[in-house]
Amino acid sequence: MTLEEDARQFLDDEIKGYLKAVEVELQKHIKSDTKLEEIVSYLLNADGKRLRPALLIIAYKAVGGEEIEEVVPISAAIELIHTATLIHDDINDDNDFRRGQETTNRKYGTLNAIVGGDFLFVQAFRVGGTYPWDVIRMIADACRELAEGEVIQNSNRYNTGETYEIYQEIIRMKTASLITGSLKVGCYLGGGSEEAIQAMADYGYGIGMIFQITDDILDVEGDVEKTGKPLGSDIREGQLTILAIRALETLPDEERDELAGILSRVEHSEEEVGRALDLIKSTDAVEYAYEQTHHYADVCRQALEHLPESDYRDRLELGIGVIMTRNY
Amino acid sequence: MTLEEDARQFLDDEIKGYLKAVEVELQKHIKSDTKLEEIVSYLLNADGKRLRPALLIIAYKAVGGEEIEEVVPISAAIELIHTATLIHDDINDDNDFRRGQETTNRKYGTLNAIVGGDFLFVQAFRVGGTYPWDVIRMIADACRELAEGEVIQNSNRYNTGETYEIYQEIIRMKTASLITGSLKVGCYLGGGSEEAIQAMADYGYGIGMIFQITDDILDVEGDVEKTGKPLGSDIREGQLTILAIRALETLPDEERDELAGILSRVEHSEEEVGRALDLIKSTDAVEYAYEQTHHYADVCRQALEHLPESDYRDRLELGIGVIMTRNY
Repeated sequence: MTLEEDARQFLDDEIKGYLKAVEVELQKHIKSDTKLEEIVSYLLNADGKRLRPALLIIAYKAVGGEEIEEVVPISAAIELIHTATLIHDDINDDNDFRRGQETTNRKYGTLNAIVGGDFLFVQAFRVGGTYPWDVIRMIADACRELAEGEVIQNSNRYNTGETYEIYQEIIRMKTASLITGSLKVGCYLGGGSEEAIQAMADYGYGIGMIFQITDDILDVEGDVEKTGKPLGSDIREGQLTILAIRALETLPDEERDELAGILSRVEHSEEEVGRALDLIKSTDAVEYAYEQTHHYADVCRQALEHLPESDYRDRLELGIGVIMTRNY
Repeated sequence: MTLEEDARQFLDDEIKGYLKAVEVELQKHIKSDTKLEEIVSYLLNADGKRLRPALLIIAYKAVGGEEIEEVVPISAAIELIHTATLIHDDINDDNDFRRGQETTNRKYGTLNAIVGGDFLFVQAFRVGGTYPWDVIRMIADACRELAEGEVIQNSNRYNTGETYEIYQEIIRMKTASLITGSLKVGCYLGGGSEEAIQAMADYGYGIGMIFQITDDILDVEGDVEKTGKPLGSDIREGQLTILAIRALETLPDEERDELAGILSRVEHSEEEVGRALDLIKSTDAVEYAYEQTHHYADVCRQALEHLPESDYRDRLELGIGVIMTRNY
């Protein structure tokens, strides 16, 4: 089966139909008589992948959930939270672009971007409030980890001494937490067992790691047309990627020091960014990163064994490959 | 009775005892193994007035609420939200100080301040999620109005054509909404009638307006030692106060144009800020602002007539005067 076929089967017409309902729900919650609606629509409606709603819904169905209307609102709420964190994230980053357009703060200013994110958080929790406490707790836990991950990441900016262990911890908290939260909520609402919920947590962790590592790879050798942001963004932001960590470990001393020098700097010329990318590509960092995605793919597959067999479990398995090989 | 006695009776030992329980609750929700705890404690524990928790609890008691433990967590949640909005608010403002210390973003940087606020929102909604949907809705509505008020205010920065009507609308949304929300939640949980809840909404609106107008007055003639921020902060931020609006309406043409010139500028010298303050003080703007607080005091008193007589209703009445004459 080709990858395109995998992707089509992961998000087939059934799942796409559910995601359409999520889309309708999303639009309901960003209505405002003020400019807020325009501010938050700008990123929310800019071709997001809706990965978290999709995973939530598939996890729900995978354990036998049948009332799809039960999970549409909470799927939308999680996408609202995800969008809020992206808007807030972009404020401090040096990136001008996300999803092929200016960032929200570049377009509408910092205050509007901050308040826009806050508005999305509020609307998400309004929806979340209609769910049982366990669901609220799972989402709040994920949001809390996300915030903690951001702060740890921020204190490690420009830190070329960052280890793979710190990197893993940051990504677990920052990228994986809301994915994991989505899967757990879907599984819980679908009536999944404790074992199934734990399996979803493990699968989500793996997916989150794969998602971030492929993001790291795309920043070094992605197709700018497709990713919607220039190469080397992580270098400009001072974020150590798994590729940079590997390159720093394996480069000869002189080149290692040169790379560390560029990565630890707050301001970069385009030439320096280009040089850093070349140094990284001169090592086995890209290959190593791909290997790591395979490792986490195994983590995901092992987790799935704890779920009952079903078409939906198959979709989750296909999803691993789709995320591993995404090009945007 | 002197004002000090009023204040002591508004927040007497009984209410202070309840607020101590709120304080314990607040500290529980900001625990983190990361720097987040330090970041959010910094403002949360910097001598806040805890006005919203106090009003929530008094409203609860005023309609016969008896289980104080029932409202301690939600009082804390609202204070967490209030603190989050202050932290986010300070990011875009040109102020260096709040409550006599550097703002959170000056001390910890923009990203940490954004994430710190987000963390407080999340923790607040975690607590909110243990309450009935009606309570969540009231708080979410208040937060939504707050965000909308911010955006409207932001689009009116440096706009010397802002009218008193727009000012009222901004303050209703930005300052009054969470005060109103606190009172409504307290009243609702205490078993108050629809009429009582509406009375609390009206009273809260009046209190919010008085609170903001006294803030506006303090920015022109407050005691800097007590307010903890320099005079003229609103001018530096480009926020039109009720005093500025009044001065623009009543100054002779030449001086009006001079004031409008300064207020519409994004950057100000200290000399310009001083000149703007002098121009405002040369009119009846301060007196006019005080008159407006008396108008809103009447709004508050009329609203209170719809509550049953009690010591707690008396406290709410005393609170009007305390807020009207606050000096910080």
